[in-house]
Amino acid sequence: MYNNITIKTLAKELNVSIATVSKALKDRHDIGVATKQRVVELAHKLNYIPNPYAGGLRKRKSKTIALVLPEVADSFFSLAINGIEATAQEKEYHVLIYLTHESFTKEQAILKDFQSGRVDGVLMSITSETSTHNHIQELYDSGMPIVFFDRVCESIDTAKITTDDFEGGYKATQHLIDCGCKKIALLSISTSLSISNKRMEGYKKALDDNHIKFSPSDIVQCSNDAEKSYNSIKKLLSHRSRPDGIIATVEKFTTNTYLACKELGLFIPGDVKVISFSNLPTAPILNPSLTTITQPAFEMGKAASTVLFKALNKSSFNLKQESIVIPSVLTVRGSTATQTK
Amino acid sequence: MYNNITIKTLAKELNVSIATVSKALKDRHDIGVATKQRVVELAHKLNYIPNPYAGGLRKRKSKTIALVLPEVADSFFSLAINGIEATAQEKEYHVLIYLTHESFTKEQAILKDFQSGRVDGVLMSITSETSTHNHIQELYDSGMPIVFFDRVCESIDTAKITTDDFEGGYKATQHLIDCGCKKIALLSISTSLSISNKRMEGYKKALDDNHIKFSPSDIVQCSNDAEKSYNSIKKLLSHRSRPDGIIATVEKFTTNTYLACKELGLFIPGDVKVISFSNLPTAPILNPSLTTITQPAFEMGKAASTVLFKALNKSSFNLKQESIVIPSVLTVRGSTATQTK
Repeated sequence: MYNNITIKTLAKELNVSIATVSKALKDRHDIGVATKQRVVELAHKLNYIPNPYAGGLRKRKSKTIALVLPEVADSFFSLAINGIEATAQEKEYHVLIYLTHESFTKEQAILKDFQSGRVDGVLMSITSETSTHNHIQELYDSGMPIVFFDRVCESIDTAKITTDDFEGGYKATQHLIDCGCKKIALLSISTSLSISNKRMEGYKKALDDNHIKFSPSDIVQCSNDAEKSYNSIKKLLSHRSRPDGIIATVEKFTTNTYLACKELGLFIPGDVKVISFSNLPTAPILNPSLTTITQPAFEMGKAASTVLFKALNKSSFNLKQESIVIPSVLTVRGSTATQTK
Repeated sequence: MYNNITIKTLAKELNVSIATVSKALKDRHDIGVATKQRVVELAHKLNYIPNPYAGGLRKRKSKTIALVLPEVADSFFSLAINGIEATAQEKEYHVLIYLTHESFTKEQAILKDFQSGRVDGVLMSITSETSTHNHIQELYDSGMPIVFFDRVCESIDTAKITTDDFEGGYKATQHLIDCGCKKIALLSISTSLSISNKRMEGYKKALDDNHIKFSPSDIVQCSNDAEKSYNSIKKLLSHRSRPDGIIATVEKFTTNTYLACKELGLFIPGDVKVISFSNLPTAPILNPSLTTITQPAFEMGKAASTVLFKALNKSSFNLKQESIVIPSVLTVRGSTATQTK
């Protein structure tokens, strides 16, 4: 199978020691210039390519990072991957991708494997099920650099790249109130995720600042099961005291909200106004166009990988001091328009 | 850094040879049961984890495959990644992800690196720029198993997983003709990609079967540059003999087509009917909802990785005989409706 030229082959061919070949290829000064040239020429002629795992074995450096994500079919994560991958290519690192599909058990199994030294560092966004963090703490304590982005684990003292989730929740709620909404529901993906909780806290604060009473029944737990989420949203909107404003804290709830409204004969924005945390490229062409809290996905991916590569290249670099918050942006579109009400 | 327990540590601790430890951990029968038990117990106690690259170095097997894609911010590729990753997790393989961002030079550089033995096999979808294939042929000739999916390279004699691109182009065109369109434009992403050409051939055949004359100016070359594509589409629709039907052969042209129509005051489907090759989850909630040729993205990813793993686990497996075509599905929605015309 493929190129089998090793240092051993070169040494045998030239009748020199393996150590000599190794030194020549590293351009060391403790061997003769003529020998060095002979080695380099033969290596070139035979198309010798260093085995990446030979170096990895010796130095325990694989030049590889792991990217652990809940999913890829979400425009936030797609854009974040672009940001991460751009930095990795620049730094000549390789990126292993692992999807947890929101399963805590899968996340545990994936992290367990990293203890083997397969990767030099980890970028991760935890699952919506993850409420205990021993598996992450254990890996981190063993010396593995870990950087969280978006869905961070607050209790672990390492770098965290997030957007302003509290402010995002506040902005979304205040915007709906400004548009005349009196009863605002929040579609949440998790009771344990820090981003969900912060967005909810922002929502509660905005209600409070506007003297609107918070009602726990206005928080609707949706899930990754599209059908279940659809039914929860439909139930919410079928209630006689249904909300007149909805905040989807995760992009994937948008389609279900629109479809549930359509089935129930409710008009957006006339009957219900909708705002979504989303990076959907189709937001401007939805029916109606979607008001969004847009997260800086690409920038977050780029910042997270930049911090990780700093840590990998400088052992004195302190990951703990690197928490970066990149602001989100409110983009107002048709789904919260007031003129048609 | 992290767990540093090696076979050597275990051997020293137990005062046995490295070979004995290695045999014990492999559960070989040529060493005593008592010794075996002592080794296994200590390995467990010290949390010994085999170095993945030690095995890789010896066997030149990394249990890693590479996935080379033009991009991830496209629902076809997102879904395909899900299919690939699901199979890889099942087979206990690791997936390195590489994005070419449609750059031929980047694709070349990425493939060059694989010659080092970093990966055991490659799954790839080529860039829209790729018109020569020496870099792929060279890697394939060196013995690297390669499986193409979606954007395949016809000239290389290996497994190819595609959808029925010719039929998709035909179906899309026939559907627009059935809806009354007289002048149909095709938005293409590449002049060299096999999928683009097949979709175009299907389009031409459908025109021909319906006695509609093909005009080269109805093929519009768009690109990955969103702004350029937008301008090309706007120019097409501003022409006095503008088309009354548009086929977007790539999902990303949809948003631009909708926005260009909006800016020009053209109604979809009244003035222009639109059909897109797309897996957009928001297709049903666009304004208007989008008629699509839906590709079996998840299934294609799954089929491609399954074929590759078969080849990796059985050296007698012949990749050349594995070309699989999975049919696409026409889903009719509002963007080609006739009642409003």
